[in-house]
Amino acid sequence: MKCKTQSEVALLLDAKDIELLKTTFPFWDELSKRETDLLLSGTKSICYQQGSHIHSPTNECVGVLLVKSGELRTYILSKGGKEVTLFRLNEGEVCVLSASCLISSITFDVFIDAQQDMQVLHIDSAVFSQLQDNNIHVENFALKVAANRFSDVVWAMEQMLFMSFDARLAVFLLDETSKNGADNLALTHEQIAKYIGSAREVVSRMLNYFAKEGMVRLHRGHIEIIDKPALQKLVQSKGK
Amino acid sequence: MKCKTQSEVALLLDAKDIELLKTTFPFWDELSKRETDLLLSGTKSICYQQGSHIHSPTNECVGVLLVKSGELRTYILSKGGKEVTLFRLNEGEVCVLSASCLISSITFDVFIDAQQDMQVLHIDSAVFSQLQDNNIHVENFALKVAANRFSDVVWAMEQMLFMSFDARLAVFLLDETSKNGADNLALTHEQIAKYIGSAREVVSRMLNYFAKEGMVRLHRGHIEIIDKPALQKLVQSKGK
Repeated sequence: MKCKTQSEVALLLDAKDIELLKTTFPFWDELSKRETDLLLSGTKSICYQQGSHIHSPTNECVGVLLVKSGELRTYILSKGGKEVTLFRLNEGEVCVLSASCLISSITFDVFIDAQQDMQVLHIDSAVFSQLQDNNIHVENFALKVAANRFSDVVWAMEQMLFMSFDARLAVFLLDETSKNGADNLALTHEQIAKYIGSAREVVSRMLNYFAKEGMVRLHRGHIEIIDKPALQKLVQSKGK
Repeated sequence: MKCKTQSEVALLLDAKDIELLKTTFPFWDELSKRETDLLLSGTKSICYQQGSHIHSPTNECVGVLLVKSGELRTYILSKGGKEVTLFRLNEGEVCVLSASCLISSITFDVFIDAQQDMQVLHIDSAVFSQLQDNNIHVENFALKVAANRFSDVVWAMEQMLFMSFDARLAVFLLDETSKNGADNLALTHEQIAKYIGSAREVVSRMLNYFAKEGMVRLHRGHIEIIDKPALQKLVQSKGK
């Protein structure tokens, strides 16, 4: 779904939005009527345009995000401008690092961008803060989400530190095809470089090598995966 | 304190041990009498010799550890044997990754070694599991500890990925002196290499360079820091 402006706010939550809150938040049944009303009053539906910076360490505490559609990417950035992707979140997933001010044990801060035009349910940080201060089930949920992301980050770290670049690129291509259920990936070399924490030139060079070896075919604007077993073999042989 | 065997178990908890449990676990006051008794019955005091492998991904779920004295180190290990230190824990700190089986959101596993002869209070994983299943305050505490470690790991990751090696070594030496309150560090080059995820030869070469520049003096078995401002300047100038 396309957004009309960079961050377009819907006027009202619809029945589907409320259903999504209910099914996503296991603490829903532990809320009092007053707490449910507070949560709903502090939630809005936002459409973010592709490339929007949803959160950065310098802006205020954005709040908790629930992805309705599209994808957001969380990354850290070095002084020199090097980006390292920590994880990406899709439909039905919750982001609490955009509300790291609410979790005192989280002392780092990240960047969060919309990778595509995307819809999110946004829960105001002051509202979420009030809920979690008064209801331990809410706090527990936020901490569990954070622990899930901890696992994602350790996985990303192992990839970055222990895997050679060709294996990392192969893992990425295989993951994307299984995620999308298609062998054609509509991704630029620049996007791939950001996802796996590398430079565009390095990605292009390796993709050309993969193409020469018959593992992929490069088209304008997309990449076709033609030999998955060869990519899988490469991954298995390349642990450092 | 020296241990007599590799992992020597004390027969009984003493009053100090129980006091430490009380002050460390904020959920103590939320436990019923039965739960307190269960916790105490499942806790023992263990002395681990320096170099002991306390936990590894292949052994069973060890349980929750509370450090009484000494230091433990948590690290990941590549297929090829490369170690990357995630964090170290000292007196009064709690390790839950040794009980990652108890936290379903934690899907990775780590190695944990005793860096010195050390004393820990060990809480049996079955006992902790029972407590957290029945008391949300216990689960909440374990998740908060995990979120703290998440912050440590992101810090370590930024160091590994964004900082040049000389700056990482300088950060390490400065942290150690401020931690120990002394300018003499009783550490081998091999130990430093493990802490900062590098090879002994690389550490030795850089330390020799630091010595030539007048920042440190190398002695047999210890390193003397003689110019902290120069090390600090190096850190500030070397973000990638």
